[in-house]
Amino acid sequence: MEKEISQAVIRRMPRYYRYLDELLDAGTERISSNDLSKRMHVTASQIRQDLNNFGGFGQQGYGYNVKFLHEEIGKILGLNESHNVVVIGVGHLGQAIANYSNFAGLGFKITGLFDVDPAIVGKEINGVEVHHIDDLEECLKDRNVDIAALTLPKSQAEKTARKLVELGVKGIWNFALVDLDELDNVTVENVHLSDTLMQLSYNITKKN
Amino acid sequence: MEKEISQAVIRRMPRYYRYLDELLDAGTERISSNDLSKRMHVTASQIRQDLNNFGGFGQQGYGYNVKFLHEEIGKILGLNESHNVVVIGVGHLGQAIANYSNFAGLGFKITGLFDVDPAIVGKEINGVEVHHIDDLEECLKDRNVDIAALTLPKSQAEKTARKLVELGVKGIWNFALVDLDELDNVTVENVHLSDTLMQLSYNITKKN
Repeated sequence: MEKEISQAVIRRMPRYYRYLDELLDAGTERISSNDLSKRMHVTASQIRQDLNNFGGFGQQGYGYNVKFLHEEIGKILGLNESHNVVVIGVGHLGQAIANYSNFAGLGFKITGLFDVDPAIVGKEINGVEVHHIDDLEECLKDRNVDIAALTLPKSQAEKTARKLVELGVKGIWNFALVDLDELDNVTVENVHLSDTLMQLSYNITKKN
Repeated sequence: MEKEISQAVIRRMPRYYRYLDELLDAGTERISSNDLSKRMHVTASQIRQDLNNFGGFGQQGYGYNVKFLHEEIGKILGLNESHNVVVIGVGHLGQAIANYSNFAGLGFKITGLFDVDPAIVGKEINGVEVHHIDDLEECLKDRNVDIAALTLPKSQAEKTARKLVELGVKGIWNFALVDLDELDNVTVENVHLSDTLMQLSYNITKKN
């Protein structure tokens, strides 16, 4: 049986991927765990422990091969395959997501935009047409969409998420201000922007 | 000496605040830790432990007074005072933040928008004028701005953050794709959207 890897480790993996991406861009071929540790401000032992969850990847006396480690972490994160993403709710945040070029470079392809507002339905954003939410089923059929970003009012979030799961969506990237923890057969990643702002507020208030 | 409270506890506090806010809206006057636990999908003992970090707030046999607990957690999070926020980088994400009405309700007031793009400088977004970044110092003088949202390219992030700290900003809400961990005299909350998307990708890939 596979060992269950903690979400704390998983949360750190995209950060490794980003740093390795920068090293790769800079033409760095290999890096010691000490140097990686200094760059990332985590201990070398933490790096070794984290990576050992997936089998290690380093060689004693050599360190890490940047290209290889970047590829392996990419595979761990599922970035070796492309993912079709739809955005439900094309307000300001939905449009920001539709326009964010970095996602495409990671293999996340925005293939559908949905809203209810007649003022936006029919428009094109970053080359993708906005459809009415009523056309969701028709549009998703045979499209192999595995991720949906929810940027809609919280009153609509759970109902819409259930519908998306029925239509085969495997992951919900949830920006609506409600925790969608109770849904079956789907993975939910809640991104509550105001929660992070409140954390920041706590930390600056405490210091004063 | 005050006890240092772990960031894991702090990360959960905004969530308590949200649930209490909903209870308050629904007219609920008091709630037992068991009922709160069921709603939030955390154990009652976790709730008691978390809140005990700040002195408790519950009464044996009564539970929690919703209004009181909401207020107290608000104070802990620094929401009893209003915060002036500037947004640096008025692209799609910056505009989404400037337009997000929920922040105002929590006491975060967007008081300044800054960019370098002549196409956007001078425009108004949600009632706030976009200034050129060169006017930052002039605009922030005597304005008591304590939080800056950075939604600009990573190459500009650190330089701009240092400037903001010089101008008295206490907290950086950082959306640029770089970790600003090395800055002195400021609290940084990194929000890397693509990291959360990669975590989601990991979790759906692992399940398949």
